[in-house]
Amino acid sequence: MNLESAPQGVVAGSIPLFAGHPARDLLPLDGIQGAIDAIWRGEGATRLFNYGDEQGNPELIEFLVKRLRRGEGLEIGPENLMIIGGSTWGVDMISDQLTQAGDVLLVDAPSYRDALHIFHDHRLELRDVPIDEGGILIAEMERTLRELEAGRRAPKFYYVVPNFQNPSGITMPKDRRRAVIELSRRYGFVIVEDDVYCDIRFGDRLPPSFYALAGGENVLRIGSFSKTLAPGLRIGWLIGAADRIAAFVGSGLLTMGGGANPFTAAIVAQYCRSGAWEAHLRWLREQYRARRDIALAALESLMPASVTCTRPRGGYFIWLGLPSSLRVDDLAAAARERNVYFAPGTGFFVDPADGLHHLRLSFSFLPLEDLRAGIEILGDLIRQRSR
Amino acid sequence: MNLESAPQGVVAGSIPLFAGHPARDLLPLDGIQGAIDAIWRGEGATRLFNYGDEQGNPELIEFLVKRLRRGEGLEIGPENLMIIGGSTWGVDMISDQLTQAGDVLLVDAPSYRDALHIFHDHRLELRDVPIDEGGILIAEMERTLRELEAGRRAPKFYYVVPNFQNPSGITMPKDRRRAVIELSRRYGFVIVEDDVYCDIRFGDRLPPSFYALAGGENVLRIGSFSKTLAPGLRIGWLIGAADRIAAFVGSGLLTMGGGANPFTAAIVAQYCRSGAWEAHLRWLREQYRARRDIALAALESLMPASVTCTRPRGGYFIWLGLPSSLRVDDLAAAARERNVYFAPGTGFFVDPADGLHHLRLSFSFLPLEDLRAGIEILGDLIRQRSR
Repeated sequence: MNLESAPQGVVAGSIPLFAGHPARDLLPLDGIQGAIDAIWRGEGATRLFNYGDEQGNPELIEFLVKRLRRGEGLEIGPENLMIIGGSTWGVDMISDQLTQAGDVLLVDAPSYRDALHIFHDHRLELRDVPIDEGGILIAEMERTLRELEAGRRAPKFYYVVPNFQNPSGITMPKDRRRAVIELSRRYGFVIVEDDVYCDIRFGDRLPPSFYALAGGENVLRIGSFSKTLAPGLRIGWLIGAADRIAAFVGSGLLTMGGGANPFTAAIVAQYCRSGAWEAHLRWLREQYRARRDIALAALESLMPASVTCTRPRGGYFIWLGLPSSLRVDDLAAAARERNVYFAPGTGFFVDPADGLHHLRLSFSFLPLEDLRAGIEILGDLIRQRSR
Repeated sequence: MNLESAPQGVVAGSIPLFAGHPARDLLPLDGIQGAIDAIWRGEGATRLFNYGDEQGNPELIEFLVKRLRRGEGLEIGPENLMIIGGSTWGVDMISDQLTQAGDVLLVDAPSYRDALHIFHDHRLELRDVPIDEGGILIAEMERTLRELEAGRRAPKFYYVVPNFQNPSGITMPKDRRRAVIELSRRYGFVIVEDDVYCDIRFGDRLPPSFYALAGGENVLRIGSFSKTLAPGLRIGWLIGAADRIAAFVGSGLLTMGGGANPFTAAIVAQYCRSGAWEAHLRWLREQYRARRDIALAALESLMPASVTCTRPRGGYFIWLGLPSSLRVDDLAAAARERNVYFAPGTGFFVDPADGLHHLRLSFSFLPLEDLRAGIEILGDLIRQRSR
């Protein structure tokens, strides 16, 4: 089983603190089974096994549009939303359509490792800009944009996980988002917000999305059922201006394949329209919040004072800062000896050296006792090594 | 419902002779339902709803490798095969990894329209080479390669549907394949064989695949369950040299998404391993053969002698040649008035003008009475218009 790029040699009985997956007992298997049964009992099952609409399952599009209009007051219609095969598909498709090899992108430092991987595969040049607890530093972003402009270049887009960022867990507040939109207009780049964690919030409302703040102009927003339903169904959605969505829908990828995963999209549509998703989300937020609390309490009591950590209000991840005397690769090697694995910070930066004193912990996947045990072992190792 | 890029305004009650889909009554829904039930009864259902192995469902890989070794004597191991989300995914992923914008590809004239669309999306330069009833003309192919070489260029790959080609229905014989491989070695390009129709053969054995003839060297071979099981499951496979497969499996696309469609791949694996697929294939070949026979008999008796047609020994398609006095766009306009739609030849060529006197009929999808009625209407229209 893939554990989000498991390091080679992860053994049974180990503690994979890197795994950014839903825990097995958080997957609503009975609900999915019920949705499948309902599909089979209903009419029109046949069409789910043939090619589908290029834009995706119409019932699911309708459900999502209504939910976003009602829940966020988002001014979108069905022409602004398409179904995709998970956020991965979105990131890849956007890269295909908006860029050519050699183009520049802006990303956060740190940024989501697997998205960086896709951008590297597209031979794009990445410029990362430091973040603080409120996300990208606007002055630094502007400095990078001016530098690029001096070389007669502009980024094609800025890729950001705006809520409960992977890997840092931080959420960008409204003012910062507005400032980014202001820069995007001045320098002419698109904002790609990969917003797969927004429904796993533990408290207050989230800031309006980039899409909402920009009135939909030059923003592409990705959503996903992977974190809140089940990754194995491979279903997400993409929101954008009608002409951009039409361009994606009219691409060869969608024309040839006949829309994203018709059968599993129908399962998701059935599940959502029954009301089961909202009920599951309420329960799920409590589960993940309890996990976050356990992780933070363990970090508080078991880590030396020299270790910093973020305190995410949602999502899956906590970002740790190590004492400057301790390199994360040394810590990873020592942890491996104790069967504990985490995601070293080096993977989340354009220049791996920038992540030499950071690491990402995930609280989404592990049994709670393993989560605590893993943090305890890490605390011991850090204490031993940073004396 | 998408009917493989249905022309705008296709109305209910129309006869879509263009639809390259399995007919609804040829989809083994009971078998799929049985596979889903078995998955739910079995152990490990949970893992199918999380991220999967980047290479794809291991049981399905094992099944396909064994089947290809046994059925074709293909010398491959699990390291040579990965699961993909339908052949579309394969064509797109290969384009991503093997090309950059501006690169040249070789394709057949005519060639599969939706693949051309994907190549256009990747901003690739397409050179098409005429085919006859045995596929690409070797002398013409060599002439094109020499021209490119004179401009210090070489194609990145040659894209071909080797068996029951879309749109022509023709199959390339062994000697022609060998000659293409010889050219690929001399001029240094990869062969991408999109072999989604091989299991819908009506008679004799097929020629060995490019992959087999080349000993796996510089050939990527795509297979799919879309034509022989159900397109809506979005499952296919890709065969190649171990290092090439490893590169695809190690891409950001697979790392981030966790392998192709874990849940539906498990359904397909369960279905295949039960023996149901082989039994379905035997039945399916008879069904499609009967459809082909009905279509050819109707063409024989209802078309004027000035119309030519191919006589495919498998697959979904028949390619018609019109009298030179009749343009296919005029015929399409007249047919539309009678609620009959077909795929004009113009879509299958790099220069649409090359297809002005051809069209593609599909015998895979329509009810048999519609298939015959559609051909009868086309025959009448051609007769009226080519006097």
